[in-house]
Amino acid sequence: MSLLVVGTVAFDDVETPFGRAEKIVGGAATYISLAAAYFTKSVNLVSVIGDDFPEETLDHMRASGINLDGLQVKAGEKSFFWAGRYHQNMNDRDTLDTQLNVLADFDPVLPEAYRNANYVMLGNLTPAVQMRVLDQLAVRPHMVVLDTMNFWMNTAMEELLEVLKRIDVLTINDEEARQLSGERSLVKAAEVILRMGPRFLVVKKGEHGALLFSENQIFFAPALPLAEVFDPTGAGDTFAGGFIGYLASTQDTSFENMKRAVIYGSAMASFCVEKFGVERVKSLNDEMITDRVLRFVDLVNFDARL
Amino acid sequence: MSLLVVGTVAFDDVETPFGRAEKIVGGAATYISLAAAYFTKSVNLVSVIGDDFPEETLDHMRASGINLDGLQVKAGEKSFFWAGRYHQNMNDRDTLDTQLNVLADFDPVLPEAYRNANYVMLGNLTPAVQMRVLDQLAVRPHMVVLDTMNFWMNTAMEELLEVLKRIDVLTINDEEARQLSGERSLVKAAEVILRMGPRFLVVKKGEHGALLFSENQIFFAPALPLAEVFDPTGAGDTFAGGFIGYLASTQDTSFENMKRAVIYGSAMASFCVEKFGVERVKSLNDEMITDRVLRFVDLVNFDARL
Repeated sequence: MSLLVVGTVAFDDVETPFGRAEKIVGGAATYISLAAAYFTKSVNLVSVIGDDFPEETLDHMRASGINLDGLQVKAGEKSFFWAGRYHQNMNDRDTLDTQLNVLADFDPVLPEAYRNANYVMLGNLTPAVQMRVLDQLAVRPHMVVLDTMNFWMNTAMEELLEVLKRIDVLTINDEEARQLSGERSLVKAAEVILRMGPRFLVVKKGEHGALLFSENQIFFAPALPLAEVFDPTGAGDTFAGGFIGYLASTQDTSFENMKRAVIYGSAMASFCVEKFGVERVKSLNDEMITDRVLRFVDLVNFDARL
Repeated sequence: MSLLVVGTVAFDDVETPFGRAEKIVGGAATYISLAAAYFTKSVNLVSVIGDDFPEETLDHMRASGINLDGLQVKAGEKSFFWAGRYHQNMNDRDTLDTQLNVLADFDPVLPEAYRNANYVMLGNLTPAVQMRVLDQLAVRPHMVVLDTMNFWMNTAMEELLEVLKRIDVLTINDEEARQLSGERSLVKAAEVILRMGPRFLVVKKGEHGALLFSENQIFFAPALPLAEVFDPTGAGDTFAGGFIGYLASTQDTSFENMKRAVIYGSAMASFCVEKFGVERVKSLNDEMITDRVLRFVDLVNFDARL
């Protein structure tokens, strides 16, 4: 019944039109595991950090039920670092700096207890590293979700196509779906991508919501219209964490349940953007999450009276 | 129980990545009234054309139940003409040519029988002309919907603000909502705009759907993901026609019913983009519309199981 989460645990410098934050805790696996831990208490993390990472954050993760046995700590080395600046529209951003540090030669090693995971979330990383994780699994999981980005499409397409054959759900944004498929229409893009391996495709459209595609079904979840968006960093990873966390907790991969998982993911992402970094995602409880999901129900619910 | 529709009836040249069409029938009021006529059989049109406009289209409109008594035909003059080219993304477009022709000195005159309209749709026009229409009404309608665009915000803001005080629903796109309010967040933009007069705001986001705001409620309707979008021209007007047509036919301005109206408008718009010009909007029937609305139900429907 366990969930395996693989991805970066890192530092970010973030600049938005509303302010800036320096050397705050970030990283895909940090957001994913913190979000997923609200749904399932057996989150097993695989990542790598230097000895510069704050013990306080690690303590919080452990207290949230996240198993850090698979977190490598490299003495004398520095954690992965990313710096970015968001444009006025908060959708586009420029990467100002990327320091791979410990990530440069990251070789993920799954502790024995992780190898029977039935839900796996592969956060955005080199496709070859994502493949290395799948190779260490003792059994075929119920569901493997993979996140990736345009950078790997530009630099490691062959490896990416290989790993896509071995997963169940791909999560990418709309522009990445277009790039990967060569199709402008997301409906056509989904057809092409679903032939590459995954049974499901989640297209993340930021403030415009998310689409879930299977071979013959489509589901759309809006983003919650918010008065203030402070920092979009990690929203996609928080979405993924809520999505896979909900699926792992319910052990149900029917399309009906995946629709709910998309809504839970969207609800978690709507919290993430309200403050810088992981601050908001660290401070939730079940009641807040339920209230937020109810706002999604209100937002899209209508009686067609047909 | 009648619906008054005011706006342009015109010719368009349209160029998209999929092809081009020359001197096809267009105009806001054409799309609005054709879409609305599927819902209510008392559509009263006010507009102006030259004697160059095809009788066949007018016959089709009459046969659809659209009253053309308020359509002025200027002998020896030419109808309004617009030419535009869509970018590869189909969201942005450049205006290549605008010939006002008969529109230059359009003075809308409401036939006596039109003056008791209880639903009014003011298509995109000079705010002063929209105001002239309201001045001729004998009674305050149940609902006045106004569509406008950034051009009038740039050139006739004072008149626009005056007419906004006298309407119930404003329909604009997301960038126009931001421009009109000076707020980036659509939630904040809606707060500002609802203080300008209208009780409801519809923000049209094209392929990203539409938002309906009242003072304390928000509803979101997606756009239907389509494999092919041939021509977005008129989609916003077709949305407006379905929206006001549904409201006029149900005579119910509750928020619950306005949500349904937004879905019907979105369904009508999803047809519009499938072919060039009004071709698709002219060729529908009730069953096709119901089937399309059911696709919207499927697209967003989920059971939160809370």
